[in-house]
Amino acid sequence: MTAPSYDNANVFAKILRGEIPSERLYEDAHTLVIMDIMPRGEGHCLVIPKAAARNIFDVETDSLAKVMETTQKMARAVMKAFAADGVTIQQFNESAGGQVVFHLHVHVIPRFEGVALKPHTGAMEDMAVLKTNADKIRAALG
Amino acid sequence: MTAPSYDNANVFAKILRGEIPSERLYEDAHTLVIMDIMPRGEGHCLVIPKAAARNIFDVETDSLAKVMETTQKMARAVMKAFAADGVTIQQFNESAGGQVVFHLHVHVIPRFEGVALKPHTGAMEDMAVLKTNADKIRAALG
Repeated sequence: MTAPSYDNANVFAKILRGEIPSERLYEDAHTLVIMDIMPRGEGHCLVIPKAAARNIFDVETDSLAKVMETTQKMARAVMKAFAADGVTIQQFNESAGGQVVFHLHVHVIPRFEGVALKPHTGAMEDMAVLKTNADKIRAALG
Repeated sequence: MTAPSYDNANVFAKILRGEIPSERLYEDAHTLVIMDIMPRGEGHCLVIPKAAARNIFDVETDSLAKVMETTQKMARAVMKAFAADGVTIQQFNESAGGQVVFHLHVHVIPRFEGVALKPHTGAMEDMAVLKTNADKIRAALG
């Protein structure tokens, strides 16, 4: 088993420290939610613990519970924001597991009947589109 | 938003009641883990809360936390059992979100460098193969 290690220079650590910008949707004492800038569907967002954790292997149980509490909140919010038909939740661990940024995060993706997930192209979404979708989610969070 | 409702006749409810067989890997007061009989990768297993919940929209926060605690335990176990390179975790909500059985469950899928997830073909895995993989995971939990 890969020994987990945490690199403070990862993109989400920088976002948590406010060193680089992000489209923030929700924040509480333990978690932060931002828009995924390479969304696999409209309204795709990411739930991140504030505590340092590489992934599922090293995260503290309590921190993971807080992440999932926020994930549930966001799942409900995106259903409402986009009148979605379902939600796909994904969490990737290590490169072989699909992980790209090595700070634990949970993908929350609104889904619609007959619409497949977009492939990972590495293409960034237009910032105005992200902002519009972020506004819808923030409104649904009330 | 779809109003969640729980149907006691779903397959996982029957498995929890012992009405139909399953390859059980782990059980505690709040959760049960079984092998996925249509695995998308070697060692693919499912974490299920004992409390009735259709999906992320209606599950109690505490029950979800217990599910994730067990999910972490299983992620670590499958890494060890199969000398895996990573783990993909998925949780699907409503049909559009990928959900097929309407009792909340979390997919834990060991991943290996260069090996893609198998598609959902609907084909059942050979029971002897499932049993052998289940034995490996139970040994890793040991």
